[in-house]
Amino acid sequence: MDHDTTARATLIRSASEAGSRVFATILTRSPISRIDIARQTGLSQAAVTKAVSPLVAAGLVDAPPATQRDGNPGRPAAPVSIVPDAMMMLGIKVNVDEVIGVATDLATTVLAAENRPLTVHDPATVATAIIEVVRALEERLGAKADAIAGIGVSVSGDVDTSTGIVRESAIMGWSGEDFGGRMLALLGRPVTLENDVHALTVGEHWFGVGLGTESFAIVTIGRGIGSGLHLNGQVVTGAYGVSGEIGHLPLADPARICSCGRRGCVEAVASTAAIEATVSCALGRDVGIDEAVRLAHSGDPAAEAAFREAAGLIGTAIATLVNLAGPELVIIGGEGVSNFDLFEKTLRDAFDAHAFGAAARCRIVTRPHTFQDWARGAAAAAIQSLVR
Amino acid sequence: MDHDTTARATLIRSASEAGSRVFATILTRSPISRIDIARQTGLSQAAVTKAVSPLVAAGLVDAPPATQRDGNPGRPAAPVSIVPDAMMMLGIKVNVDEVIGVATDLATTVLAAENRPLTVHDPATVATAIIEVVRALEERLGAKADAIAGIGVSVSGDVDTSTGIVRESAIMGWSGEDFGGRMLALLGRPVTLENDVHALTVGEHWFGVGLGTESFAIVTIGRGIGSGLHLNGQVVTGAYGVSGEIGHLPLADPARICSCGRRGCVEAVASTAAIEATVSCALGRDVGIDEAVRLAHSGDPAAEAAFREAAGLIGTAIATLVNLAGPELVIIGGEGVSNFDLFEKTLRDAFDAHAFGAAARCRIVTRPHTFQDWARGAAAAAIQSLVR
Repeated sequence: MDHDTTARATLIRSASEAGSRVFATILTRSPISRIDIARQTGLSQAAVTKAVSPLVAAGLVDAPPATQRDGNPGRPAAPVSIVPDAMMMLGIKVNVDEVIGVATDLATTVLAAENRPLTVHDPATVATAIIEVVRALEERLGAKADAIAGIGVSVSGDVDTSTGIVRESAIMGWSGEDFGGRMLALLGRPVTLENDVHALTVGEHWFGVGLGTESFAIVTIGRGIGSGLHLNGQVVTGAYGVSGEIGHLPLADPARICSCGRRGCVEAVASTAAIEATVSCALGRDVGIDEAVRLAHSGDPAAEAAFREAAGLIGTAIATLVNLAGPELVIIGGEGVSNFDLFEKTLRDAFDAHAFGAAARCRIVTRPHTFQDWARGAAAAAIQSLVR
Repeated sequence: MDHDTTARATLIRSASEAGSRVFATILTRSPISRIDIARQTGLSQAAVTKAVSPLVAAGLVDAPPATQRDGNPGRPAAPVSIVPDAMMMLGIKVNVDEVIGVATDLATTVLAAENRPLTVHDPATVATAIIEVVRALEERLGAKADAIAGIGVSVSGDVDTSTGIVRESAIMGWSGEDFGGRMLALLGRPVTLENDVHALTVGEHWFGVGLGTESFAIVTIGRGIGSGLHLNGQVVTGAYGVSGEIGHLPLADPARICSCGRRGCVEAVASTAAIEATVSCALGRDVGIDEAVRLAHSGDPAAEAAFREAAGLIGTAIATLVNLAGPELVIIGGEGVSNFDLFEKTLRDAFDAHAFGAAARCRIVTRPHTFQDWARGAAAAAIQSLVR
């Protein structure tokens, strides 16, 4: 990190609560006038002006120059803007079979992307692959690499962001793994470790469709089924670091055993692996997800039934989430969205059958997140860790 | 409302966001020093001092008098206190068979309680009973009645607090009922209408076991099964006014039809009425809840089975809530708590079987809320409506 970047990171980290809120508002709504910042944050215009000055001085925020005529650079109606190049961020998404990384600016615009395949996924191998991705991204950034202010790493499972420990990741087969410590030892600098769906939720809230929505949920379908909750303007992280475990709601037949060991979890019926297992069992041979999709599209009754069962359970799970949390919007993402035609009708019918009262007004939309979007979420989580 | 009370209510209502936070902090943590207020709210000491002054001037907050020696009434380490008698509040809880009201001071200390039985529960009859309770409480307060600054009314169901409309209350048999408008016409002043469990959650957060806990849930068991969520320091009200509908999570056998018309709701198995119906059906005669409790305590297998089924489903529902929202604490309340021995073991076993990862660390405690506590929650909701 060069001198300017260090100074900027320190300024953001040490800001007062008012200062943090002003920075986050400019970051996500740039360009924005000081009047509108005051409106958004509930702070006085004087407090906003006071908070903006050091950000401008540090080169994080651009304020229009004073002109001869009005001579007042702090005039409240003139918009201020984030300086995207003031800092670079790296975001890394760890999948079972692949590490995907992006380099972004402060507005999480992707400047470069890299990936490395994984054939095994023990922590040491994954850490080495991440280091390779980081080095490749640094090379791609060139001189700008000196401005890297943070690295976010997102992984599926129960992740304790404060300690950097992955307490449980069924998909990776990790348990009590100090992955943050491992990365620190290898990189010589801390990374922000975050649950992958939480990171995606931060990204959607700050830079995506969640902006301006006080309460929304992201539900991801595919290999894993997870969700991120954003209520009253904040991500719900869980008092013990776990929340949004929609894949492990006990909504299915108890006879269905989940890979986590519990009975009746949603994932035991509706994950990619569960759909593959159901179709394989019905047809008496190994069927992968791509073939299962083709079979369902061509009208194979066993494949159709497997997707219908999964879709009904996901719709019921979304109704469960909505009845409890009452969000305005549910965004369905994850790789399963690419075959959403196989889910949609049954999913919406199940939602309608179980959503309660006015909570049923919640809109359900899909968004085809690419794995780059997930990596971008990890970069957003790294930015957020600076701001808080 | 006398002149002082009107001025105080106006001051609170028109406060800046910082002013509101300072007032709420003093209200709930009184006595508290200005330094600690600054710590709690994240505001500067100067901002706290500025916000405290008008509260002192209006008689809402007591600051120790300046002494000759230090001569500085604003010294930051001296504690300030709420003046409980500065305002009176009325809180009303509407049950199917009874209206319960309390008069409280600003700290929701109960000064008087009144109730009226209900034999029918159409809106007009209920409104008349509430007016009777209000008049009786005013009489009990005597001269202090002039200081009544707000009336909170809580009722089970989907309540739109912003419009005063009860959109759906299965227990009362109301639908699209403008109960707030009805009360305004009868009383000549607005009431704060709130879902009963949300009101109880506000009360627990501000004046109960929820104080100091960033995230907790109240789950009420009994005639209705509901919950209130308090996450990241705020009540989750739902974007459309509905949240915490744990009684209508689709966790039961779809063959069980709920009084709301949906299939497989928790209430269809675990509410008081459902337990009565199950035991009555098994024994071939009408069995009320008190007899069902006696039968279960004396080892009747049908009654025991009915409570076990209800308890398992409630425990599963709490695990569902915990897996999604990750609270630190779940408080079980409601009239069903009086027989919690019939629920506890099965409920905790079901919770343990389905709670995911570190979310399972969530503590589950019971609290025997009286109906007066519910009415007190309505008073707290009325105070909160002033502050926001």
